[in-house]
Amino acid sequence: MLLLRPIVRGLWVLQSTPRLAGVAWGSLPRACAAWTPSRAQGTWSAGHSSQRRKVTAVGALLGLGAGLAYGNHRRQATEAEPNAEAAPGAPYPVFTRQEVGQHRSLADRVWVTYGNEVFDITDFVELHPGGQSKILLAAGGALELLWAMYAVHSQEHVLGILRGYKVGELSPEEQSQPTPEDPYAGDPPRHPALKVNSLKPFNAEPPAELLTENYLTPNQLFFKRNHLPVPAVDPASYRLQVEGPRGRTLALSLHELKSRFPKHEVTATLQCAGNRRSEMNRVRPVKGLEWGVAALSTARWGGARLRDVLAHAGYPEEGQAGEQHVGFEGLDQDLSGAAYGASIPYSTAMGCHGDVLLAYEMNGEELPRDHGYPLRVGVPGVVGARNVKWLGRISVSREESQSHWQQNDYKGFSPSVDWDTVDFSTAPAIQELPVQSAITEPAPGAAVPPGELTVKGYAWSGGGRGVGRVDVSLDGGRTWHVAELKGEEQAPGRAWAWQLWQLTGPVAPGSTELDVVCKAVDASYNVQPDTVAPIWNLRGVLSNAWHRVHVTVVQD
Amino acid sequence: MLLLRPIVRGLWVLQSTPRLAGVAWGSLPRACAAWTPSRAQGTWSAGHSSQRRKVTAVGALLGLGAGLAYGNHRRQATEAEPNAEAAPGAPYPVFTRQEVGQHRSLADRVWVTYGNEVFDITDFVELHPGGQSKILLAAGGALELLWAMYAVHSQEHVLGILRGYKVGELSPEEQSQPTPEDPYAGDPPRHPALKVNSLKPFNAEPPAELLTENYLTPNQLFFKRNHLPVPAVDPASYRLQVEGPRGRTLALSLHELKSRFPKHEVTATLQCAGNRRSEMNRVRPVKGLEWGVAALSTARWGGARLRDVLAHAGYPEEGQAGEQHVGFEGLDQDLSGAAYGASIPYSTAMGCHGDVLLAYEMNGEELPRDHGYPLRVGVPGVVGARNVKWLGRISVSREESQSHWQQNDYKGFSPSVDWDTVDFSTAPAIQELPVQSAITEPAPGAAVPPGELTVKGYAWSGGGRGVGRVDVSLDGGRTWHVAELKGEEQAPGRAWAWQLWQLTGPVAPGSTELDVVCKAVDASYNVQPDTVAPIWNLRGVLSNAWHRVHVTVVQD
Repeated sequence: MLLLRPIVRGLWVLQSTPRLAGVAWGSLPRACAAWTPSRAQGTWSAGHSSQRRKVTAVGALLGLGAGLAYGNHRRQATEAEPNAEAAPGAPYPVFTRQEVGQHRSLADRVWVTYGNEVFDITDFVELHPGGQSKILLAAGGALELLWAMYAVHSQEHVLGILRGYKVGELSPEEQSQPTPEDPYAGDPPRHPALKVNSLKPFNAEPPAELLTENYLTPNQLFFKRNHLPVPAVDPASYRLQVEGPRGRTLALSLHELKSRFPKHEVTATLQCAGNRRSEMNRVRPVKGLEWGVAALSTARWGGARLRDVLAHAGYPEEGQAGEQHVGFEGLDQDLSGAAYGASIPYSTAMGCHGDVLLAYEMNGEELPRDHGYPLRVGVPGVVGARNVKWLGRISVSREESQSHWQQNDYKGFSPSVDWDTVDFSTAPAIQELPVQSAITEPAPGAAVPPGELTVKGYAWSGGGRGVGRVDVSLDGGRTWHVAELKGEEQAPGRAWAWQLWQLTGPVAPGSTELDVVCKAVDASYNVQPDTVAPIWNLRGVLSNAWHRVHVTVVQD
Repeated sequence: MLLLRPIVRGLWVLQSTPRLAGVAWGSLPRACAAWTPSRAQGTWSAGHSSQRRKVTAVGALLGLGAGLAYGNHRRQATEAEPNAEAAPGAPYPVFTRQEVGQHRSLADRVWVTYGNEVFDITDFVELHPGGQSKILLAAGGALELLWAMYAVHSQEHVLGILRGYKVGELSPEEQSQPTPEDPYAGDPPRHPALKVNSLKPFNAEPPAELLTENYLTPNQLFFKRNHLPVPAVDPASYRLQVEGPRGRTLALSLHELKSRFPKHEVTATLQCAGNRRSEMNRVRPVKGLEWGVAALSTARWGGARLRDVLAHAGYPEEGQAGEQHVGFEGLDQDLSGAAYGASIPYSTAMGCHGDVLLAYEMNGEELPRDHGYPLRVGVPGVVGARNVKWLGRISVSREESQSHWQQNDYKGFSPSVDWDTVDFSTAPAIQELPVQSAITEPAPGAAVPPGELTVKGYAWSGGGRGVGRVDVSLDGGRTWHVAELKGEEQAPGRAWAWQLWQLTGPVAPGSTELDVVCKAVDASYNVQPDTVAPIWNLRGVLSNAWHRVHVTVVQD
């Protein structure tokens, strides 16, 4: 006899699958955290043996506070009566692992275990922010195995959701906990100064004030943005697969990449699409990692030119109809074996002055494991997400990469588009990034002396469009000063690296507070927008409004 | 005996020459109009025969109202006592034209005549907004000859400045007026619908509501921006001079250009750097023609590829140290014989997918005279000023064009930079333009019915970065709608032509007024800035803030 009952009373807000298709794995912490206690209803049914009865699960989602909510997106849910038969306090039915294992598909219902409890998550599958295919990897087995990969699930509000689906318990003799191997156990050690946004996968940025201490960011402090565990690659057996134009696939060893192709070096800044997302999140909640201003860094990259390798494989200098995109696959894989993937336009790969690299060096050192050892793509001027790490395979195609990250993530939308209305096919995948700048000193809320104030920061633009000027204001944007720029000499159209800047300006006598602002102008005279709200987008990417830092003037 | 006196009592505001070097000929109307009655003093001396005495000229500048003033820029002037010997009402000395003709240099003093009066303008020479070399063309002779070329001088406040320098009158037997030939007499007829911003040289834009009626702007309505009279070119004897890499100069006839090189066609939008200057002028006065939103248009251009012609002349595909810029000279010349000139980077000339044209066709017709007949440069994605018309000569150089328009005009500056502090060498010459959009319907101040409002406009970005999205707001930017884009299919990175757009949105019930706003996003996700003031610059270029149109809702 099956006994079902809602464990947690409450109402929740969820969304239908298409609206969640855009959530990247790396963005799960925020995707999940975005659910908040609010009003909506979900209907579900659970079955066992021949019995299948409709019940109502009403779950309270604890969330992480209103600041992480994302509005009134309601699941199109069927209203249902509370389950009269779910007698509170009644014992749960008991199952064996084998019985649970029979529920591995939507047709057979999807059951999972967590600890000693059994859950029928069939009706949650389509609501899973990470997509159906990922959650089905745990079907019929222990959730711990999946969650070890995607550690973002280890949060109380996620457990709250799960509890709403409980249908039974494991029989006492099977109540030993599965002890999954931690897929992140092999990740490399990291510098303790990094500000960690997500531990598994590892995502971290350096403290802002350290960021601009060096023109070339030390490798250990270079921001890290992983989507999956860091793969362990044996350099001796490593082969880069390059699909040739006539079906033949080249396999290039590291030694061949280093010896057959001239080594080319490029100083380039890499920026995450989500840099400065936290500012956008303060306007209205978005999905994604809570990056500050330091999800970008600069290095001197060394490697083979991508265009040399493509030419070696037989591709022409100017692509024809069949050669419109160059796709990359990483060796980092999820539980299903799917690799991280992205693509860039063929013209970028072949053009860009030959500065697109297959990089094996970073700041004169061997590429660190967190940055793609032994080989990564370096596409200067283009969003970090296309600079695929742990590069395993290159292909050339009429179409863009079909990966989740190319198709359903890393795109920009109007502020009017929300998760109810978003259609990822309508927006272009982000490639070149817009002009950007931010203040790294003083820190927000700092107490500064009267007299003069020194402001420091960085400025950069995508597409090789160097930064021509940075304007700094100490009065919220009413008056401006032109900052002094510091950076390597860069050829026009190939200005791939940032400019660091500095301004020492007068603090108006009697000031008690200052609203410090910066904005940059690039070589095409593009400028940053004044405010965040009009560029707000549901994924919190492309956050490049004027950067503002509020400080207090402390009289001696 | 020389008798000198201040004719007009008052004080004026002028600037030193370096600060005025940036004023283009075409911008003279505003440059002159910018002088206003204000406080400052100028000292000058005038001499005749062996006599040379220091006197004080104090001139009242009538100006064109406070709206055209540009602030408190003061000439570094020597304070001087009023000239005690300048007896009001005393007769002026009388000179012959020959005597006037002896004063043709700063060393010999610079005299000119205007009507029957004689002026010593020596001390004004360095203050001339158009530069010393231009004003010296009139030295020793009649100003009428110069002013016929630069018709902007025919304004009362300019005459007011001149009166301050009067030193005598022509002898009665020489008082016949010079009747200069009008250098603009040969200009072609123009369409009467054009809104004329300057007649000589001719500068005009189509009415905004006509602009977006056609994807390809009809030639007659295409905005016209001339810096000098339209030259009359004989197509039979026309030769394009191309300076080759080893000192040899090619001379290509029109027939050779059309027959030796494949004809290439490109649909491209051309935009003046000063488009939408009038909005910037409303924030704070700037110098330049008062363009509305229609100083841009789109055509299908046909011609030879510039890179084919350069390759034919012997230039390599990738430039070396000596090949960094490609310079262009027009056949339009000022009185001194100096041609309009500009340059573009060598990489743009050779790259850009071969889309830089030497165009002899515009929308399937022979290039019209106002647009550069018989040959012009078409640099898609780059500011109009580099698209040199009536092309006479191409050269390749280590350096940018040394022309006034490349060096001391068409550059952007911080809002903090004024004519007292500007240093033109510190800013890059404008090449690629930033993302732009504007509303062409409804017109500002229009009365619109309740219910729904249809808004139309254009959007474009420089550098081949197509426009990906246009957001339209009917409530001043609080909420946004995504407009429908209409345009030719364009390859990524080669999106040289605009998108026309349209949005029909709901007028909130009860609204009496609407603040209609548009903003575009380009392929690199650059956006337009929210407001004008933070991008204000003294030349009023690069005006690309959100476009705002205020309308009234009229109930039935």
